[in-house]
Amino acid sequence: MADTSFDLIVIGGGPGGYVAAIRASQLGMKTAVVEREHLGGICLNWGCIPTKALLRSSEINHLLHNLGEFGFSADNIRFDLDKVVKRSRAVAKQLASGVGHLLKKNKVAVFDGNAALDGVEGSLRRVKVSKDGSPDTALTAKNVILATGARARTIPGLEPDGEFIWSYREAMVPKSMPKRLLVVGSGAIGIEFASFYRNMGAEVTVIEVADRILPVEDEEIGAFARKAFEKQGMRILTGAKLGTLVKENGTVTVPVEAGGKSETFIVDRVISAVGIVGNVEGLGLEGTRVVVEKTHVTIDPFCATGEPNVYAIGDLAGAPWLAHKASHEGVVCVEKLAGKDVHPIDWSNIPGCTYSRPQIASVGLTEARAKAAGHEIRVGRFPFVGNGKAIAMGEPEGMVKVVFDRASGELLGAHLVGAEVTEMIQGYVIARTLETTEQELMHSVFPHPTVSETMHEAVLDAYDQVIHF
Amino acid sequence: MADTSFDLIVIGGGPGGYVAAIRASQLGMKTAVVEREHLGGICLNWGCIPTKALLRSSEINHLLHNLGEFGFSADNIRFDLDKVVKRSRAVAKQLASGVGHLLKKNKVAVFDGNAALDGVEGSLRRVKVSKDGSPDTALTAKNVILATGARARTIPGLEPDGEFIWSYREAMVPKSMPKRLLVVGSGAIGIEFASFYRNMGAEVTVIEVADRILPVEDEEIGAFARKAFEKQGMRILTGAKLGTLVKENGTVTVPVEAGGKSETFIVDRVISAVGIVGNVEGLGLEGTRVVVEKTHVTIDPFCATGEPNVYAIGDLAGAPWLAHKASHEGVVCVEKLAGKDVHPIDWSNIPGCTYSRPQIASVGLTEARAKAAGHEIRVGRFPFVGNGKAIAMGEPEGMVKVVFDRASGELLGAHLVGAEVTEMIQGYVIARTLETTEQELMHSVFPHPTVSETMHEAVLDAYDQVIHF
Repeated sequence: MADTSFDLIVIGGGPGGYVAAIRASQLGMKTAVVEREHLGGICLNWGCIPTKALLRSSEINHLLHNLGEFGFSADNIRFDLDKVVKRSRAVAKQLASGVGHLLKKNKVAVFDGNAALDGVEGSLRRVKVSKDGSPDTALTAKNVILATGARARTIPGLEPDGEFIWSYREAMVPKSMPKRLLVVGSGAIGIEFASFYRNMGAEVTVIEVADRILPVEDEEIGAFARKAFEKQGMRILTGAKLGTLVKENGTVTVPVEAGGKSETFIVDRVISAVGIVGNVEGLGLEGTRVVVEKTHVTIDPFCATGEPNVYAIGDLAGAPWLAHKASHEGVVCVEKLAGKDVHPIDWSNIPGCTYSRPQIASVGLTEARAKAAGHEIRVGRFPFVGNGKAIAMGEPEGMVKVVFDRASGELLGAHLVGAEVTEMIQGYVIARTLETTEQELMHSVFPHPTVSETMHEAVLDAYDQVIHF
Repeated sequence: MADTSFDLIVIGGGPGGYVAAIRASQLGMKTAVVEREHLGGICLNWGCIPTKALLRSSEINHLLHNLGEFGFSADNIRFDLDKVVKRSRAVAKQLASGVGHLLKKNKVAVFDGNAALDGVEGSLRRVKVSKDGSPDTALTAKNVILATGARARTIPGLEPDGEFIWSYREAMVPKSMPKRLLVVGSGAIGIEFASFYRNMGAEVTVIEVADRILPVEDEEIGAFARKAFEKQGMRILTGAKLGTLVKENGTVTVPVEAGGKSETFIVDRVISAVGIVGNVEGLGLEGTRVVVEKTHVTIDPFCATGEPNVYAIGDLAGAPWLAHKASHEGVVCVEKLAGKDVHPIDWSNIPGCTYSRPQIASVGLTEARAKAAGHEIRVGRFPFVGNGKAIAMGEPEGMVKVVFDRASGELLGAHLVGAEVTEMIQGYVIARTLETTEQELMHSVFPHPTVSETMHEAVLDAYDQVIHF
């Protein structure tokens, strides 16, 4: 019979849960993970990873239709959608099976099923694991981490139907290319799908209820990205309200009101990307002191809930809804449990990335939020058209924007749009972790020729010392 | 008549000289640049920039021959070498003309010709500008910066002849693709050309006198890159000595001795990439206290030479021979002249990049040099095969290696090979500028999914906390 008594039980095997479990095991805790569907969670199986594979294909499609610029030509350029999707699934599968190996290697026990808190037994927490067709399993542990993640939010009238109205799941495994696509929601997920399908040749319209796309990003960066998307032929309607969708004759008719005008779209498919809700149900939270607010569990900066020995991490525990935030919370949480001297989580220093073409990456306060927080600021900008590598790559569309506190020189935020920026942003994150001011960023020598030099020049610009513009 | 009296004269308009001049002008100095050939120097016109454009084309050629992996196909894939070269020249021209505009905008006077120190006039330095067919111009300035750069080293028997034996110049503007190419020298320049021609379809052999390629890089990284190049079909001979080259019948016969064996190569073209020598001639250094050692000017950490009011920066002033090192020296030099509170130059924190496929990027001490310097070290490694984004991109070939001082936790060096690493290395540079230990790098949240996560995992690995391997 399998062992049922642990130091730590992690409920949910996504990037928060499995990373927490591995780190806990490294720290000497006897650890179990309970996962109901697939190790690696949404991120590896139906999120970050497979979409990156798809987006790589769509970048290639774009390149193949612009070969002349680089001195190349080819005839009969085509793609096999089935192969594109299969590659994405194979990448996801490879990485998800890797998670299984990592857990095994780190001696983490894995249970298959739904888990719920089930009271206490002396100083131990009880956790019940249920699975259809099997008897329940009772586990105990000193500590429990809830890491069940989140799911797509649905709004009335826009419920995914598996055929015409897609959630991220169907959007990731299209059987055929929709000719006309409507994407509802312009957060990272909506914009990534819009970018994928547009670059693969579909007519794409994006509908956003807010007055701008990528609403969490700096306004200037969002506007820059919008212009780039529109230049690629995407239609974008902001401040837009959906009317009642009508499905007939294999198409969807979508009435939209935006800017005081009404317009009706006839499209083949609709993708709903209107946010997420936390998976708080069935966790046995009733009667505990775990606080749930707007479908998310409230935690302190070490991931403690109100209930003793019960912790929460990742999407379940609130924004930003990002895999690396979940993993980081997992590590901080278990290191604190192990009695290590850890820093509280600094949610203001979690970067966010959107892998569209162009890419968007940011960390810290936008200009507007910095001002709203009462900072007197200095802002620096640098465009990719002033950067040699960007021009040599054929990627001159992009910019970097940095926001400093005028008095202290603290880097409050950094906001990037353009090629490679998702790989560049970590430099600003490290700088902020080390409490940089503009001085250290100015003194750092960025290699030439790289796109990353724009990160240096934007800082110089904030202090009127820019060289290449 | 043009003004001839300045606060600062910069001799040489490359990335050291023109950046120094712009910064000096920003700081209120009346500044002139004397350039004998083309603004932007070798870097913009015949170095970093045009080679990056060529390498981008060769990456595309590689991709076009591996489309199936991503679900694409095309027929009759071909390139027009003339167009590939013309694009590279156009990129160089665009950026070089940009330098002219920047100097004008920053009110820097530009003189066309050769410049030499020409004694003193009271407290001022005299500089003579000569140009064939024009009378000499006499300029004066309080301070002079020498920034004349370097040129390719030639070795007897391997002198570039413009036809069979190429320097970097001819190698950058091929009129036709050599079928068989021999590259002599495996530093960054030799390897970049080898990578370009190999990826464009040529048979490429690299000859290196040292016992390994990329001799300044960490041994493990060099070995990793070598294996990757050989997998691509490159032949590499290290510890190799060239015999006497014979040119006949449109080919070059090259006897090579390596590993106790003799082999004779018959190739169409030979590229000589055996290092550089400083442009110290004709600068009027005779009778001054400027010290020249092995064709380079000796400077202190603020770029002062032994001669009062005479400074030197960039390739002329010694290794590393890198554009960003030149620019940085230029900025530090003029800020010091302007009386600003500047840090001395830290030559140990200058990153180096090679833009081959795979790319190589590094900063600080290699493992061997860290040990030789007496450090007890901790080493961390992480391979790209453990990274989701690298796999999703189809770029699983790469690794990150970090070297820490065991006692202090100081990051002594970082060494990367693989896709995107030239854009990633700045994170470690910034970390080193801010005197990071392993702790801050561990606490930094790297965005998922990015290749840059390998930078985090390598640090974790050095302290036995790696998650994904």
